[in-house]
Amino acid sequence: MIKASTCFPIPKHDHFSKFKATHEAFSTTIQSVQCNKGALMTENQEVFKETLFQFEDYVVEKAKRVNEALDEAVPLRHPLKIHEAMRYSLLAGGKRVRPMLCIASCELVGGEESVALPMACAIEMIHTMSLIHDDLPCMDDDDYRRGKLTNHKAFGEEIAVLAGDALLSLAFEHVAARTAGVSPERVVRAVAEMGAAVGSDGLVAGQVVDIASEGQEVDLRELEYIHVHKTAKLLEAAVVCGAIMGGGETVDVDRMRRYARCVGLLFQVVDDILDVTKSSEELGKTAGKDLKTNKATYPRLMGIEKAREFADRLVAQAKGELSHFDSSKAAPLLGLADYIANRQN
Amino acid sequence: MIKASTCFPIPKHDHFSKFKATHEAFSTTIQSVQCNKGALMTENQEVFKETLFQFEDYVVEKAKRVNEALDEAVPLRHPLKIHEAMRYSLLAGGKRVRPMLCIASCELVGGEESVALPMACAIEMIHTMSLIHDDLPCMDDDDYRRGKLTNHKAFGEEIAVLAGDALLSLAFEHVAARTAGVSPERVVRAVAEMGAAVGSDGLVAGQVVDIASEGQEVDLRELEYIHVHKTAKLLEAAVVCGAIMGGGETVDVDRMRRYARCVGLLFQVVDDILDVTKSSEELGKTAGKDLKTNKATYPRLMGIEKAREFADRLVAQAKGELSHFDSSKAAPLLGLADYIANRQN
Repeated sequence: MIKASTCFPIPKHDHFSKFKATHEAFSTTIQSVQCNKGALMTENQEVFKETLFQFEDYVVEKAKRVNEALDEAVPLRHPLKIHEAMRYSLLAGGKRVRPMLCIASCELVGGEESVALPMACAIEMIHTMSLIHDDLPCMDDDDYRRGKLTNHKAFGEEIAVLAGDALLSLAFEHVAARTAGVSPERVVRAVAEMGAAVGSDGLVAGQVVDIASEGQEVDLRELEYIHVHKTAKLLEAAVVCGAIMGGGETVDVDRMRRYARCVGLLFQVVDDILDVTKSSEELGKTAGKDLKTNKATYPRLMGIEKAREFADRLVAQAKGELSHFDSSKAAPLLGLADYIANRQN
Repeated sequence: MIKASTCFPIPKHDHFSKFKATHEAFSTTIQSVQCNKGALMTENQEVFKETLFQFEDYVVEKAKRVNEALDEAVPLRHPLKIHEAMRYSLLAGGKRVRPMLCIASCELVGGEESVALPMACAIEMIHTMSLIHDDLPCMDDDDYRRGKLTNHKAFGEEIAVLAGDALLSLAFEHVAARTAGVSPERVVRAVAEMGAAVGSDGLVAGQVVDIASEGQEVDLRELEYIHVHKTAKLLEAAVVCGAIMGGGETVDVDRMRRYARCVGLLFQVVDDILDVTKSSEELGKTAGKDLKTNKATYPRLMGIEKAREFADRLVAQAKGELSHFDSSKAAPLLGLADYIANRQN
């Protein structure tokens, strides 16, 4: 299992160097959250510092909780190989952005972390399934993921297909069997939401259109379709299902859905920008791949500066959707939006 | 879409030739159901004939309903290719044994067909997903299924993987979004049951152990493990989830689970027997494949006669589990057990 404290990479353009030595990991994120609070930052550095510490603690604690829960959700048992394969990819040290969005959303509407934890794990299982299947030779044919051999390279293609299938079905089973303290009506709503995010109107649709667009001229509308489906739909499900589990009112769930749509697209725009501005070493995966494969990306279609401006607008819009909530309660989701905007890999 | 009336093949050893011309399709099944009713068959042929007609009608009607519901569940839409691929395999003319078991179980405990129909479709989606993924080059590498090119041969491997993923997630979404007239608590229970049937303790476990056993000496215990997981678990979920949706009491759901376990294993024992006793033409798929690949089967491990006796015991045990129910109400499930025992392909 990864160390929770290494989940988030260190941003390079940290303006708050006084906190850098001890709180590097989340300082860019925090900085942006604080910027929204205006006076707080300049008038009372102690309060700022304290809030900063709390936010870092929040993220570290959630990552740890999610990693422990994922570890427990897939114990090693007979047949060993499939469970080893499932655990290999599930516990390979992802950033856990999706589970955190899920838990933070639940808490924002007043729910306890525990009611969203099975859903948070389920979302990460689905995300892992999509990575395992996307890496297959018949898809992106990748040999490495998160600095390790891809699942099919480590266990064989047949096991990789089955590990993905097992993680996908476990996601639904886990939510249905393990969620406690939530009305069954809300669990059913969340299951429908999850399913829609993965299927042929969600993740799969994005992947199919992405594959079909290879070697084709793709315009901005098509690019947005691919990104919204391949990436944003699952982030949206994470947020919306978290809010449903937390007992959120429809009007709040809708607000958070809009936040999630912005953040989901933002996630992919930033990915595109990083691909052309960072080295493979910095990214932990092959950089410049999109450029080499002549893939449509935001920087390619609108230029790097316009892509950055688009990312800025998305993060502002995402935060705007949360303006209705108390800003201290919304701090984790605001912080996660900033983290996604400013991440360096 | 297939014609519902062609779903069930014509058994070769039909003892009731007077009904053969007009009611060939299900006569072997009916014959066995009637055998259980003793006097009814010899004393009152008219009553028998009437019951026979009703049973055939039941099965034809259910197959039609399931095919229509499956057709509606996956309409053709953007992105076209993935929906074509999903429909290609889902509407390829399977026998619909699993959906029928699901609906018959719902009705046995007093539920309306409509409350089990989304679940019946979901079980068939999962079954179809397992066939698509099992046929992949990295798995069984089959070119034909149900007399048509396999999904990856028709659409490419990447689409076949994604079509399976989409069908699997749609199964859960469909149950959660489309089930009406059932308490959410029961829907949640059924979703957990479905998930457990597919995952690394269900279908996937069976497939993994099956793959690992290739070229190995397999004993009866291991063979039963493979069959129970690869085949019986999903049939069990079909029956149990049908009973849950129908409002079944725990004691009845448990009885039906035991019935389903027998029927599920029976299904595979009969499959093994057919592989060594039928021609490829009769089966609609390659016969003698198990023998050629030196695969462990019941006839190979215990001889053909003992395998037949085992099948007889399983069907008797399955029916015994339903003896608590009114036999006229249980007729569809009794009939389906006989059909599975006596099917010729």
